[in-house]
Amino acid sequence: MTINQNVTAERPNFVSHLECSLTGERYEAGQLHGLSRAGRPLLVRYDLEALARTLKREELSSRQTDLWRWRELLPVRHAENIIALGEIETPLIPIPVSGGAGVLVKDEGRLPTGSFKARGLALAVAMARELGVKRIAMPTNGNAGGALAAYASRAGIETIVLCPEETPEVNVREIAAQGARVWRVNGQIDDCGAIVGRGAAEGRWFDFSTLKEPYRIEGKKTMGLELAAQFGWQLPDAIFYPTGGGTGLIGMWKAFDELEALGWIGSARPRMYAVQASGCAPIVRAFEAGEEHAERWENAATVAAGIRVPRAVGDFLILRAVRASGGRALAVDDDAILNAVDDTARQDGLLLCPEGGATLAAYRKAVTDGLVERGERVVLFNCATGLKYPLPPAEGRLDRHSALDLDVLAPLRA
Amino acid sequence: MTINQNVTAERPNFVSHLECSLTGERYEAGQLHGLSRAGRPLLVRYDLEALARTLKREELSSRQTDLWRWRELLPVRHAENIIALGEIETPLIPIPVSGGAGVLVKDEGRLPTGSFKARGLALAVAMARELGVKRIAMPTNGNAGGALAAYASRAGIETIVLCPEETPEVNVREIAAQGARVWRVNGQIDDCGAIVGRGAAEGRWFDFSTLKEPYRIEGKKTMGLELAAQFGWQLPDAIFYPTGGGTGLIGMWKAFDELEALGWIGSARPRMYAVQASGCAPIVRAFEAGEEHAERWENAATVAAGIRVPRAVGDFLILRAVRASGGRALAVDDDAILNAVDDTARQDGLLLCPEGGATLAAYRKAVTDGLVERGERVVLFNCATGLKYPLPPAEGRLDRHSALDLDVLAPLRA
Repeated sequence: MTINQNVTAERPNFVSHLECSLTGERYEAGQLHGLSRAGRPLLVRYDLEALARTLKREELSSRQTDLWRWRELLPVRHAENIIALGEIETPLIPIPVSGGAGVLVKDEGRLPTGSFKARGLALAVAMARELGVKRIAMPTNGNAGGALAAYASRAGIETIVLCPEETPEVNVREIAAQGARVWRVNGQIDDCGAIVGRGAAEGRWFDFSTLKEPYRIEGKKTMGLELAAQFGWQLPDAIFYPTGGGTGLIGMWKAFDELEALGWIGSARPRMYAVQASGCAPIVRAFEAGEEHAERWENAATVAAGIRVPRAVGDFLILRAVRASGGRALAVDDDAILNAVDDTARQDGLLLCPEGGATLAAYRKAVTDGLVERGERVVLFNCATGLKYPLPPAEGRLDRHSALDLDVLAPLRA
Repeated sequence: MTINQNVTAERPNFVSHLECSLTGERYEAGQLHGLSRAGRPLLVRYDLEALARTLKREELSSRQTDLWRWRELLPVRHAENIIALGEIETPLIPIPVSGGAGVLVKDEGRLPTGSFKARGLALAVAMARELGVKRIAMPTNGNAGGALAAYASRAGIETIVLCPEETPEVNVREIAAQGARVWRVNGQIDDCGAIVGRGAAEGRWFDFSTLKEPYRIEGKKTMGLELAAQFGWQLPDAIFYPTGGGTGLIGMWKAFDELEALGWIGSARPRMYAVQASGCAPIVRAFEAGEEHAERWENAATVAAGIRVPRAVGDFLILRAVRASGGRALAVDDDAILNAVDDTARQDGLLLCPEGGATLAAYRKAVTDGLVERGERVVLFNCATGLKYPLPPAEGRLDRHSALDLDVLAPLRA
């Protein structure tokens, strides 16, 4: 059979060091790291000059299309540590009726466990395996927990997952079914994170919270790498990204810089729109106030569970990327979110998750407000399959034992 | 951006005619067809000699990998009739712990709407558009209804879907959310089919029941085409396929014959194992009795909703393919099904749907019974994402306001 070389071949590793995203302090590669000494995210750095000499863009283009084709831009040293569950390249789907010309949805729901969290967790768990971690704990709003459970179970690593009690039922059950131990907490995701942090400080487990280890972002950056390849080594005009912890937005921005340093793309960048729900919009509030950091959002509430994130340790990184790109942070109401989901499902045949619906709602608002022109090349990120979220009930019933008047179902045409 | 040529380019069409699968009676291409005059499925036939002269295997291999790369082996005449929702090639995933060496799961849950039904309905709806159909009705156990709703809504075709009242809740809601009108019926899928058939006879709609139109099988055959490409133009030793209506099994068998006629593969074939649940096993019963046709199975009951199909109009085609291949029809209990799902989720990180679990249960039984040797190259079909099915509850709760003893979650190691 055609073996997937991407996950079996040994390839050179180009990680040079890690550095604090705030202070630039350097940390050694090949060691277990959490946050920096300054309490901020660590960013993996690569010897991109050496990489550019070693790997040509055309060779990468000829590889099977999946996440692991980008090996040399990823931190895993040995192929034996890769845990592969079929991390396919996610498709770009036009939504001509609900979105309009030029609007493409990148459908992350096709990944293992049905969400984009598979990207970050695939990388982080592979690195955990490489660095000898035996037990991992993590807070989640649902999808990250499912991805962690799947990859860690396959790797034989024990996992403990904490989630807010309002986490969708299917997520909690998925996490348990995939082999993690999971508890609901009467709080938000950062309250769950506080418990995880405490246990990590006590030496019980390694903390996998968003951006508190350096490798989930490396997995998420593959969304940006894929976009570049899918757009023929150019980039769209604008990206609308549902923003909770912001790892994906930060990751894509990092990916674009790395690709440019390699000489594989030019200096043009998409405008990055960080999308939040009006019921939990700390990044939007900080953006509008011109702040560098975002205060915790109290009484967070939204149907879009994945972006119900009151506080993000990478807030300054999100805001920097958004501002540098000429984009914005935008908030949308739950009504607009659900209308968007409904429209795309009925008109374009694609069932978005609420967070994906939020990006369409934000795009619509951005067009109205003149931030985006109709026809610009826009990518909306649908981060998970809509099937993981509660849908409205459907109640029609027929009794086959009674005389059925089929006119009720479908009148004969005149 | 890199346009997906597979769905935009005009390509030559090689359909020569259709023929009755039982009598061989010929029918004209480019016309609306249901069952044959003999009341049996129609099979689309291609001028494979002309196709082989026109398209080289290497050219097809160079195309983007998705379902529409196989255009010349599909019946759609004009690209404008293609409705594309991102029909990606589905990955093959090893399950070394729960399955063993040589066992690969083809994970159909990555397709639009989260199931392999996307393949058949994408083709059938494209042909409905090409042939001017305005309203479609169909019985379903869930997944086919979701796929029909998605593709038809995008195509602007009205849909009516009937399903058994025990259809999983998420399926029924998905069908409605994706723009179809849906009713639950107090009966099995063939009872739903009877109502659909009546309405079709009255001229209310076109009947899209399994094998009652000729194009769902053409979409399903792409599973076989993909396998050939993924195995480097060879085929696995055995395929375990969850069998309800059997369209996929019949489709793959057809695909293998077409590929051999093109000279793209040799004459070797996998042993085809049709997998059913012991609570609804009409094909297994007929196989064991040496019958050509399978009587209706009364009191059908199984957790694997997709294969709760008491009667199949293509029964003789399933049985012929299974026998010709040297395979068998096998039945497994619900316990074995659920254990398989549980094992693969916890040990290999892949959450199968129950029908996918059935194929693993059948494989395990086949190994025990000496039908398959450990290490043979075996493909198990996971027809849908496990997230569309009820999962066991997970009940752990923590109160963050009380003094938490984290030893409860994870004791410190000595």
